[in-house]
Amino acid sequence: MLNFDYSIPTKIFFGKDKVNVLADELKKYGTRVLLVYGGGSIKRNGIYDKVIDILKENKINFWELSGVEPNPKIKTVKNGVDICRKNLIDIVLAIGGGSSIDCAKAVAAACYYEGNPWDIVADPQKIGKVLPIASILTLSATGSEMDRNAVISNTETNEKLGTRHPDMAPKFSILDPTYTFTVPKNQTAAGTADIMSHVFEEYFQKTEGAYIQDRLAEAILKTCIKYGIKAIREPENYEARANLMWSSSLAINGLLSYGKNSKWSVHPMEHELSAFYDVTHGVGLAILTPHWMEYVLDGSTLQNFVDYGINVWNIDEGLEKYEIAQKAILRTKDYFVSLGLPSKLSEVGIKEDKLELMANQAARFGDVGSFKPLSANDVLNIFKAAF
Amino acid sequence: MLNFDYSIPTKIFFGKDKVNVLADELKKYGTRVLLVYGGGSIKRNGIYDKVIDILKENKINFWELSGVEPNPKIKTVKNGVDICRKNLIDIVLAIGGGSSIDCAKAVAAACYYEGNPWDIVADPQKIGKVLPIASILTLSATGSEMDRNAVISNTETNEKLGTRHPDMAPKFSILDPTYTFTVPKNQTAAGTADIMSHVFEEYFQKTEGAYIQDRLAEAILKTCIKYGIKAIREPENYEARANLMWSSSLAINGLLSYGKNSKWSVHPMEHELSAFYDVTHGVGLAILTPHWMEYVLDGSTLQNFVDYGINVWNIDEGLEKYEIAQKAILRTKDYFVSLGLPSKLSEVGIKEDKLELMANQAARFGDVGSFKPLSANDVLNIFKAAF
Repeated sequence: MLNFDYSIPTKIFFGKDKVNVLADELKKYGTRVLLVYGGGSIKRNGIYDKVIDILKENKINFWELSGVEPNPKIKTVKNGVDICRKNLIDIVLAIGGGSSIDCAKAVAAACYYEGNPWDIVADPQKIGKVLPIASILTLSATGSEMDRNAVISNTETNEKLGTRHPDMAPKFSILDPTYTFTVPKNQTAAGTADIMSHVFEEYFQKTEGAYIQDRLAEAILKTCIKYGIKAIREPENYEARANLMWSSSLAINGLLSYGKNSKWSVHPMEHELSAFYDVTHGVGLAILTPHWMEYVLDGSTLQNFVDYGINVWNIDEGLEKYEIAQKAILRTKDYFVSLGLPSKLSEVGIKEDKLELMANQAARFGDVGSFKPLSANDVLNIFKAAF
Repeated sequence: MLNFDYSIPTKIFFGKDKVNVLADELKKYGTRVLLVYGGGSIKRNGIYDKVIDILKENKINFWELSGVEPNPKIKTVKNGVDICRKNLIDIVLAIGGGSSIDCAKAVAAACYYEGNPWDIVADPQKIGKVLPIASILTLSATGSEMDRNAVISNTETNEKLGTRHPDMAPKFSILDPTYTFTVPKNQTAAGTADIMSHVFEEYFQKTEGAYIQDRLAEAILKTCIKYGIKAIREPENYEARANLMWSSSLAINGLLSYGKNSKWSVHPMEHELSAFYDVTHGVGLAILTPHWMEYVLDGSTLQNFVDYGINVWNIDEGLEKYEIAQKAILRTKDYFVSLGLPSKLSEVGIKEDKLELMANQAARFGDVGSFKPLSANDVLNIFKAAF
């Protein structure tokens, strides 16, 4: 197990009707709030109206940054920064999924940065002071509600990059599983794949002796596998939505990564798909993951896949090790298909002639991942297998 | 899953030589520190000298409350309060295991309480302001390094009670697994039993739909089972000590309890053993746990034990359910014996004629536990079975 400095300061208010804490929690930071949200879903399902009522009743002033894109764009961040500066915003409140929360984080950090906001995305070291951030979660997927990361896209340069800062962790997040009852099946599926991918990125690593982290990872994987499909079949099953929602936060808040080396593999590859084609993040991950697993399976990674097969998929431990590993990969692939997710890059509009460009872009900072470091050529091979 | 408000603010500095952060972290709260520690072990193994060197080098003033008992006593708390008030202490730093940390917490809370310090133990509602608390952990057991609880004994009244307050969570704790290399076998065993019991108290509950919490609990149990015995056989095995240490914190910091109903069963029973006989807490838990399991096993609790047997002990899921449950209980009992722990109350000096008094005392606030609520008579039956 590696040394680590653990700090997960975000408070979570979890459960039905927890939005009732909103006014009191916001007032700890001020009375001038920037709301950040995406499309119309929060208006259709009543969450927007509920929040506005609470703000008005409690005389909390608010401004709005709406229309945040599924892969939030730097120009939207810039608009948010302008609103914050002009109106002396005290706290940025995202309502939505990871896109809205990531956008809110970037706005909060860029607000205090004098230069081009893209600078703080490209180089997290440039982040100094950050406005307080809070969130009301409406989609179980990215875990942005409890972590310090934000992913922002730049359409001018076809770049999608992650940035991070301790003060970008939300001060509090409200997780009401009933808010995800109206999430469509395809988004529930993509969200589940995203959560599972966050766990895979931490689980499939070579750090010695991080036993407890790996068993905790398996616990979250089992939860996703059980409840992802259940939430798709029964969208208003509270138990399923609650377990998925809490999984989304715990998968990436640090619980699984503290004590491990965790340079990620599949996310950097997927970011290129989203940057070039605006593919839904979780869909890209679900397509790439089994092909990545097949590609990196060798003598040095075999035991990880054996543990995965036995502990997560209950595959008979009496079988030959490679058989266990291959069965586990197949089960993973089949599970994503059972959620209704595509299994080929060609199914989501990606063109074969862009694979090489995207592979080179994914590896432009060096090898991808630390489980089995991948060159641009390795990434291209995985893209081709997934095509 | 029940609604919950999650807040785990303690920062953890985990790993070899992490004590190097001590001066910088303390200075965030002030330069007048009360050290709280127990017997001579931290002086024998060099940790005391190391800390004193750091404090002196950094011109941090310190006072000392030493001789904290294994079950810390209220008179020791009073002595600590006197030192804090007289010397305008900024932060209370415990060095040791749960006893030192619990004592530090009670001192920090009682410092701002005008009446008898025992009042804030008997009634947590009376806790107001609390001095900042930090810890350097030297024993993996109670989890006090990352929770908000303290257990204090009153020898005048034969009472041992737990108190709690959000501000009693340490601001930071330093967890260096090498500091536990010199922990004797019997204390390593008792500590492992204590950690496992914290997990059992949360795991064996009837809350519906808290699936993720239960799988996380199993992850920690598997870790304890693997590394408890390993740490006893190889005291300087870093991997074993690290996994046990992190288990001790995660078992009780809220990760397993948020979202569940968790009125504990075995701890309140054991507290009477310690209050009357000063039994080592983890030893008392190890003796009582299997007998408690046998006593509460019935149709309404069967599935919990089946899950436990299959998921933690890998018992064949094809067996009949009661057989799985009984095998799981036997495995638990055998495991504690394999650690060298006693399995009978009579082995640790407890007299049969006190069982009824202790049972009545355990149930004096009403039924014990919520998994299967236990009357004084139930507790007596368990004590007799364990005698």
